[in-house]
Amino acid sequence: MREIFAEVLTIGDEILYGQILDTNTKWISRELDDIGIKVRRKTAIGDKKSEITDALEESLKRSDIVLITGGLGPTKDDITKKTLAEYFNMELELNPSALEDVEDIFRRFGKALTDINRQQAYLPAGCRKIRNERGTAPGMWFEKDKKVIVSMPGVPFEMEAMMSKTILPRLKKHFPLPTIVHKVIKTIGIGESWLAEEISDWEDNLPEHLGLAYLPGKGQVRLRLTGVGEEREALETEMDKQIEEVLPSIKKYVFGFGDIQIEDAVGEILKSKELKIATAESCTGGFLAHRLTAVPGSSEYYWGSVISYHNDIKKDELGVSEKTLESYGAVSEETASEMAVGIRKKFKTDIGISTTGIAGPDGGTEEKPVGTVWMAISFGKNVVTRKIQLPGTRILNIEYTAIHALNFLRQTLDKQ
Amino acid sequence: MREIFAEVLTIGDEILYGQILDTNTKWISRELDDIGIKVRRKTAIGDKKSEITDALEESLKRSDIVLITGGLGPTKDDITKKTLAEYFNMELELNPSALEDVEDIFRRFGKALTDINRQQAYLPAGCRKIRNERGTAPGMWFEKDKKVIVSMPGVPFEMEAMMSKTILPRLKKHFPLPTIVHKVIKTIGIGESWLAEEISDWEDNLPEHLGLAYLPGKGQVRLRLTGVGEEREALETEMDKQIEEVLPSIKKYVFGFGDIQIEDAVGEILKSKELKIATAESCTGGFLAHRLTAVPGSSEYYWGSVISYHNDIKKDELGVSEKTLESYGAVSEETASEMAVGIRKKFKTDIGISTTGIAGPDGGTEEKPVGTVWMAISFGKNVVTRKIQLPGTRILNIEYTAIHALNFLRQTLDKQ
Repeated sequence: MREIFAEVLTIGDEILYGQILDTNTKWISRELDDIGIKVRRKTAIGDKKSEITDALEESLKRSDIVLITGGLGPTKDDITKKTLAEYFNMELELNPSALEDVEDIFRRFGKALTDINRQQAYLPAGCRKIRNERGTAPGMWFEKDKKVIVSMPGVPFEMEAMMSKTILPRLKKHFPLPTIVHKVIKTIGIGESWLAEEISDWEDNLPEHLGLAYLPGKGQVRLRLTGVGEEREALETEMDKQIEEVLPSIKKYVFGFGDIQIEDAVGEILKSKELKIATAESCTGGFLAHRLTAVPGSSEYYWGSVISYHNDIKKDELGVSEKTLESYGAVSEETASEMAVGIRKKFKTDIGISTTGIAGPDGGTEEKPVGTVWMAISFGKNVVTRKIQLPGTRILNIEYTAIHALNFLRQTLDKQ
Repeated sequence: MREIFAEVLTIGDEILYGQILDTNTKWISRELDDIGIKVRRKTAIGDKKSEITDALEESLKRSDIVLITGGLGPTKDDITKKTLAEYFNMELELNPSALEDVEDIFRRFGKALTDINRQQAYLPAGCRKIRNERGTAPGMWFEKDKKVIVSMPGVPFEMEAMMSKTILPRLKKHFPLPTIVHKVIKTIGIGESWLAEEISDWEDNLPEHLGLAYLPGKGQVRLRLTGVGEEREALETEMDKQIEEVLPSIKKYVFGFGDIQIEDAVGEILKSKELKIATAESCTGGFLAHRLTAVPGSSEYYWGSVISYHNDIKKDELGVSEKTLESYGAVSEETASEMAVGIRKKFKTDIGISTTGIAGPDGGTEEKPVGTVWMAISFGKNVVTRKIQLPGTRILNIEYTAIHALNFLRQTLDKQ
């Protein structure tokens, strides 16, 4: 079976000039990868006819599928539809079914249809309309020399629904696809090169049809094993055996598999041990609570938080003593401990966790530079604390602190 | 003066297959755009020699500058350096200055240098080393037929320091660059097509050398006016005049200019009116506090929060009455009001703002479906409330609620 290749074309000056972040191509690539379509190249070009036509032409030489996002908006700078109509030599004509969709959307939003929006129902005659349930620009499916070209709006929320409901199922029917299996091991608290040294023997002995990739993220490294074969079950069994072999050497860094996030792992432990938790945050300013509550169903174990940005709140609400704040300062092991103990007592939970630090850019001193963070966990009769020193900007320091705190929590709970 | 074109090449299977989100190319494009270098195309390819060489060859045909990120890691799947050495016909040799840098990094981290890391100091003979202050993989600067090719690591934190300190200044010296001015108007609370209708006369009458782009984001649309010319000051004056002309028709949607975020705008108002604020969050679970505290210096006006995820916390800490919760439920105008009043009283601030809603995916009813959110603001003798109905997933609902709440706050404060 030959490999099926796809390319993703992103159209829009706003992407090209860095005005907005493109999250679509990541999402699309991953979905294609999951069904065994190999993404060969991703290209971003501006709202310019010749650039679009050139890029499309080149992609079609290399690959079987070209998925295009962007440039379908109702405003004057969007030219994708017109360009595609010319490229495929089709007239733009009113598509009654597309008009119905647009009218329907406006009815649901309770807004009046404008002339600009009515024009979105004009499509190249000969393309297949793809319904946009979440917006006004329809998608378009073209076929040429057995290749497939699809144009979608750039709004992620609209594109994703279109892909999941219509385009991916249609691609699976249209092309014969191989069996691809991915297995992901999620690690935290060890850098890429140290991890690589730990498992280098194992990696060297992997068979040809199994590939390993290191995918570093914030404070984390994902290990992705990819297998290509014919028979899914045999491939899965083989890969599971390989994973079983490597796990013992990296066990303490592994918090889960697949798509799991560190907050999911923590949530699972809390649920299985029937523990309730509350947070007391200073430098993270709500971000630790946000990560914990990003998990659906977290209300089962997460009670709430006091964000004590001002020192008065640390004293009045969390019971941090005046003396502690004076002797050791707000960013100290002592303050972190009293915060964790205080929130647990106040919210009557099994566990209290706290963060206090200097996120920056200002507020650092020689003794406590920007990035100095203390965290504490109160549980049973114990309080455990940890200090970290972060090198980043304000937002990065906030995000890393939350991740560190979640991992600290995981390690502490694992020992219970 | 002819235009100088650049392309960005991203190398890495992890990007191509959608395992990680590429934020580098946005950052790079924006920096290039700011100094008047036109980004013509962005391309992502995998860790494969022929793909890298082909893409580089094509980019060099179209453009003057090729900036490459990724594929410089110490692990076995990273082949960029070797591929570039072959492409430019250079031997890899130990670069003593690069070795010093790597040793220095390891000293600072307090870790032992591994063999794998020592190999990172081998560079193609003939390239210029670019110091990596924040990691172990050095950057490389190549020149060929008056064109510039630069290879950088994919870690954003490392790449950004390299670009800012070395590469951008060097590019500015190397190429003659035109004058480009961007002015951005930030709007909130109006959709792209409605905004376009409001200003269509003005847009139609813009002179040729001024371009307008609509950049939609979460609940927001940025209007970007781009001017190309010779003389910066004249261009700026002309653009300011154009902006003055369009502003009156969209005034109530405009919260600021340039890079400003809605939380910055709110912070500016709070500071200028010398008001202190506290938050009481349920469905947003700390995300509203996070947005407010993402602003450096927010401790000047932000006192803290009670996140009342559990109803007991709403009662015990915020003073929401049992009767209110029973009669109207946790997601109601009445509960939102009592939360806002309660947090303001408890934290002794001028303003209290609250959110309570059903983020999903579970917890919705026919009367209150997922996405139902109430928010309230308590100030002076008043409480104002607002209900919104959101269509998204859990995370989107949380993010949109925070943005809506910030805009609600801005509108309420503006009226004072």
